[in-house]
Amino acid sequence: MFDYEEYLEKVEELLRSKQYAALRDLLLPMEPADIAALLEEAGEESMPLLYRLLPKELAAEVFVELEADSQEMLINGFSNNELKEVLDELYLDDVADIVEEMPATVVIRILDKATPEMRKSINELLKYPEDSAGSIMNMEFLSLKKDMTVEDAFKRIRRVGGDMETINTLYVTDPTRHLLGVLSVRDLLLAEGDDLIEDIMDANVVSVSTLDDKEDVAQAMSKYDFLSMPVVDQEGRLVGIVTVDDAMDVMEEEATEDIEKMAAITPTDKPYLKTSAFETFKARIPWLLLLMVSATFTGLIITSFETSLAALPVLTAYIPMLMDTGGNCGSQASVTVIRALSLDEVDFSDIFQVIWKELRVALLCGLVLAIANFGKMMLVDRMMLGNTSLAPITAAVVCMTLVCAVAVAKFVGCTLPLLAKKIGLDPAVMASPFITTIVDALSLLIYFQFAKNMLGL
Amino acid sequence: MFDYEEYLEKVEELLRSKQYAALRDLLLPMEPADIAALLEEAGEESMPLLYRLLPKELAAEVFVELEADSQEMLINGFSNNELKEVLDELYLDDVADIVEEMPATVVIRILDKATPEMRKSINELLKYPEDSAGSIMNMEFLSLKKDMTVEDAFKRIRRVGGDMETINTLYVTDPTRHLLGVLSVRDLLLAEGDDLIEDIMDANVVSVSTLDDKEDVAQAMSKYDFLSMPVVDQEGRLVGIVTVDDAMDVMEEEATEDIEKMAAITPTDKPYLKTSAFETFKARIPWLLLLMVSATFTGLIITSFETSLAALPVLTAYIPMLMDTGGNCGSQASVTVIRALSLDEVDFSDIFQVIWKELRVALLCGLVLAIANFGKMMLVDRMMLGNTSLAPITAAVVCMTLVCAVAVAKFVGCTLPLLAKKIGLDPAVMASPFITTIVDALSLLIYFQFAKNMLGL
Repeated sequence: MFDYEEYLEKVEELLRSKQYAALRDLLLPMEPADIAALLEEAGEESMPLLYRLLPKELAAEVFVELEADSQEMLINGFSNNELKEVLDELYLDDVADIVEEMPATVVIRILDKATPEMRKSINELLKYPEDSAGSIMNMEFLSLKKDMTVEDAFKRIRRVGGDMETINTLYVTDPTRHLLGVLSVRDLLLAEGDDLIEDIMDANVVSVSTLDDKEDVAQAMSKYDFLSMPVVDQEGRLVGIVTVDDAMDVMEEEATEDIEKMAAITPTDKPYLKTSAFETFKARIPWLLLLMVSATFTGLIITSFETSLAALPVLTAYIPMLMDTGGNCGSQASVTVIRALSLDEVDFSDIFQVIWKELRVALLCGLVLAIANFGKMMLVDRMMLGNTSLAPITAAVVCMTLVCAVAVAKFVGCTLPLLAKKIGLDPAVMASPFITTIVDALSLLIYFQFAKNMLGL
Repeated sequence: MFDYEEYLEKVEELLRSKQYAALRDLLLPMEPADIAALLEEAGEESMPLLYRLLPKELAAEVFVELEADSQEMLINGFSNNELKEVLDELYLDDVADIVEEMPATVVIRILDKATPEMRKSINELLKYPEDSAGSIMNMEFLSLKKDMTVEDAFKRIRRVGGDMETINTLYVTDPTRHLLGVLSVRDLLLAEGDDLIEDIMDANVVSVSTLDDKEDVAQAMSKYDFLSMPVVDQEGRLVGIVTVDDAMDVMEEEATEDIEKMAAITPTDKPYLKTSAFETFKARIPWLLLLMVSATFTGLIITSFETSLAALPVLTAYIPMLMDTGGNCGSQASVTVIRALSLDEVDFSDIFQVIWKELRVALLCGLVLAIANFGKMMLVDRMMLGNTSLAPITAAVVCMTLVCAVAVAKFVGCTLPLLAKKIGLDPAVMASPFITTIVDALSLLIYFQFAKNMLGL
């Protein structure tokens, strides 16, 4: 859709030959997100120059799309006047986002250059917990009164609508700012000029509270197909709106976080290549250590069966296969349940239905895997590879273990995320790595138990 | 935000006492998505009755939100007239979605009751490939001509805007339907009545083609903060728009698909509890079989070192820990890279930067893990558990293997997804299960090599 490489070459060419007017003409028609990406690619040296070529309003839009470190670099290079100009063009929620990412010295400069009202609003926004609806809402929205006519409403939109992030959805409030109704700009356009707002508004408004989790807000907006969601404070007063573009970002972030947690990584909100090796290391090492320690149990189990394994060494060869298959089955179940939980498709009350389903799936999977494995062990391992120490009864032990291990894996895999959710933990943490560690130990216990009883070791 | 349990009880109570008017009053103020969820919960018997209580327009909105099997059930119960009424209220893209999910007999009935224009449009929509922008676009959108005045545009909106899914973004086309520009309804409201559309429109329009991947379209809409994205055909003519609510659904589906593929599951688009055990089995078993077969190599490696293991049985006890840690490291790297790929944060040209970063992370992780493990082996396994056969040199073999296995795991984990993407495969398939299988075999080879050389086995 947009070829950065091609544009980047042109930009660099024009920079070299100092054709600034042509450069400006090249950038002007682009989307702010694309200009930001180009600026990032152009590097620290050219960025301030390119940025200053942009007209004020576009510059502010591009500024919002830049990475935090580029924003910091630009702010450090700004004169006081330039900083003020950028701040004036930005929406409050964006300024608050930027302030959150900047080091203290930059924050002081920003707050110093902000208007007193802006400073007050930023402080309020920063007070909301990190993952709350309050932290992502925009405090500039267009509100109407119920006794306005459609004509009055249009006048109000024409007067203040230019400064708002969106006017597609309009909220009706009473004098104490309580939310009374909602209407779209289309409702206004299709109404008569002298209709009263209260007659055309929809009085059934879905709203969220400032302290609601931003992920739930995004989910609700996706479910209801809303373009914006009103946010009310503890007293039910309308204090802001969450717009759909921010909801999309939240959904994307949350999916990334879930995926990272499932792979035993502490989530970070920086893009991959912007994270230093040390930061990545810090996000990964605690889980690796924890999981390594838990794998000790598997080692202990093996140690306690050392003599049996020494008596029939061929048993050792199937340990990796049993562990891997158990782990894979467990992660299939856990990941499916974790995702269903985060999409609100299941909750704890469904636990028996989930277990019943997973056990039937486990039976089917276990049988097919056991049959395939028995055939493979007899045909390939015994006949083709000539491993005569592999008696059919040993193959039976491996295959019976397989059936049991699959059942245990599916059971553990589907219950742990549900239990985690129930006790208030994040279910995503109960994904493959944890399940694998538990399933490994259980599979080995089953394996050695079958071996002891059936092979008399 | 919305308590289904509570409402469901009320609904059942009112159904029992046949208070249909009260029931209708209870449902009317709700959001369509919530009514649909209630209908699903109420079960097959009450659903048609509840559905028929809804006024025509709301009924259609609720219909779209229902699961495919409920839709089918309702359609089968509809009279021809009822079916026609629902179809008349639905947007074309929704009808096309429904048609795709229904069995042939229902499809024939739907096409039979659709107006000829609707039938033609549905057929056109169904012709687009499943994951294309064309398949999710809406063909009803509001277009303006460049020589209209703002006043003309408002007249047009008032005339046809009621039937459109959205009027927030308006597209300007020439007589051959080529896309000339874009403007928002706010631009119209802030302009003067006699301004010409071509003077206030933005002529730099980002558009996608009908055959573009719907995931890329959703990504682009999120990046550019668009409420709708114009879709043009091969000849550059505007044929539809993708609205942001559909883009959000695509993003959610794609995240689910990625997560499923990462856990070695063939993606299905049905909710977890709506999928039968057999369907779930079918989605999981091919990967389990494939991975079980690949685990054979690990077995072969162990078999070929059977005599070494018999000579020093303590080595066996560390196999699970080495395999698990390798697997976890590999899945951390692969999942991070897969997600970065799907968010467009990295591409194949970054491969050396990615490898360089992962190797540094691997070195840090490997050293910390090796030191921790050496301490644990000496203090816990040897001293506390009295495993005197565990010489420091053996612990050194395990720890050196750990460092190498971590490095190999991170290397394989980060390169395979990039290579998969390069040759046109889905990188998500190269996640934990595959990486684990490969890393297991490599770790064991390293382990036995160290054991052979350092312990003289």
